[in-house]
Amino acid sequence: MGRAISRCGTRGAPARLASALGYAVSPGGARIRPTILLAVASACGEDRPEIGDAAATALELIHCASLVHDDLPCFDNADIRRGKPSVHRAYSQPIAVLTGDSLIILAFEELARIAEIDAARSARLVLALARRTGMPGGICAGQGWESEEEIDLEAYHNAKTAALFVAATQMGAIAAGQEPGPWAELGARIGAAFQIADDLRDTLCDADTLGKPPGQDDLNGRPNAVARYGVQGAMSKLKDSLGGAIASIPSCPGEAMLAQMVQRYAERLTPSAPMPRRTVPGE
Amino acid sequence: MGRAISRCGTRGAPARLASALGYAVSPGGARIRPTILLAVASACGEDRPEIGDAAATALELIHCASLVHDDLPCFDNADIRRGKPSVHRAYSQPIAVLTGDSLIILAFEELARIAEIDAARSARLVLALARRTGMPGGICAGQGWESEEEIDLEAYHNAKTAALFVAATQMGAIAAGQEPGPWAELGARIGAAFQIADDLRDTLCDADTLGKPPGQDDLNGRPNAVARYGVQGAMSKLKDSLGGAIASIPSCPGEAMLAQMVQRYAERLTPSAPMPRRTVPGE
Repeated sequence: MGRAISRCGTRGAPARLASALGYAVSPGGARIRPTILLAVASACGEDRPEIGDAAATALELIHCASLVHDDLPCFDNADIRRGKPSVHRAYSQPIAVLTGDSLIILAFEELARIAEIDAARSARLVLALARRTGMPGGICAGQGWESEEEIDLEAYHNAKTAALFVAATQMGAIAAGQEPGPWAELGARIGAAFQIADDLRDTLCDADTLGKPPGQDDLNGRPNAVARYGVQGAMSKLKDSLGGAIASIPSCPGEAMLAQMVQRYAERLTPSAPMPRRTVPGE
Repeated sequence: MGRAISRCGTRGAPARLASALGYAVSPGGARIRPTILLAVASACGEDRPEIGDAAATALELIHCASLVHDDLPCFDNADIRRGKPSVHRAYSQPIAVLTGDSLIILAFEELARIAEIDAARSARLVLALARRTGMPGGICAGQGWESEEEIDLEAYHNAKTAALFVAATQMGAIAAGQEPGPWAELGARIGAAFQIADDLRDTLCDADTLGKPPGQDDLNGRPNAVARYGVQGAMSKLKDSLGGAIASIPSCPGEAMLAQMVQRYAERLTPSAPMPRRTVPGE
């Protein structure tokens, strides 16, 4: 990802925007989506690792773009992201809007560059990523649901969170020259688990652990699995989703390795101490 | 373009965002960039018009996205665009940010779709469009210059305005299976002429003719050719740019037709009555 970003900091580029692009992608978070993408590509027996690398970079660029725009005052108005000031706080709102835009464009540019290796896979990756990023079913659509008076909860969660996990599994398959169709379910189930785990962490963890203020879903009136099912109900849903994810892995050379990876995520995602977060007065 | 947008309004999509996408692209402006793209493709003897059509759609989607984001309160804070409320005024700021994002993504999706006709051209079109849209030299970079304390005027104008005209001529050539390199100068010169004509109109025309409030460059402290060279000096620069554009047209089957097109634009772009706009008190 550093290479894609550093190409933007050449002479003749506006320095603050170039700097903000680097700021927005580092230090990275868990990089869970590109890790899943690369695991699926490897499990499918990829023949050209450069394609998987470019696909993983593109996916993480889109994820970072979405964080920068979601943090804007007109959405979550988040001051802190990954333990440091959000892009609009560290730079400005104009720079934050342009950073998100530039990261989106950079993602597609990254995918187009691999056409010299395999033009057909390059185009399929662009299509798969666009479908899970834009309208009508990608993360833009997910964010768009928050402007509706009545939210279609299933469409909302599918688009807002699961979409980029489906992109991860499907792009991993495409990068390895395989059909993406059978890989959608694994992505959707991991995405659903991730959403529930995120809701649990938002309820159970403090700001230091989260790297951002907790309780944001309540604050922003967003649907949350813990509010809906309670802590124990949400924990049970999380386990179901992860079990379903493992069961849905398509037959492939790396099937066992992938099952192990999902199991490891299951352990990491499940909050170890399901104690209600201490509420600080005035929080 | 209508087909690309209407795919976003399916069941299961958030209705307000879907509606805003249609709102942002209609009624269209002069569609000058796609018209140039199609003229170049035709002049190059295009063999698959569907590719040129998709490229023209993608380019106009990017242009519309840039207008929606540029109008946001943190940039131009424009209430009116093309004679009707801007997207953030008609809908909301969140919807306007997401509309811009979705239009950008839709543009690349549109280009990826033509891979089934010609995957190599599809990828080259994605690269050409990304380069002129993002960082370090596209319209995002152009807008980014406005956040710098010292503006590199040449880089600013090249990125802010000329970039999408260079995209138009180069994508036209790529759509027809030709090399884009020789077509950059024509785009750059038309872009420079367009920028000067825009500056002249911003100084000389009233709100009804412009479809937006005049004098915005002065108001936003942006560099303007009229402020720099005076009205007569800017008119002379405009004529030079258009003459240079015609001279730069690469040798191709439709060379004469293209020269006629640029001549027609020259007549339309040149303000007919170079009278200073009346300044209304309190404007």
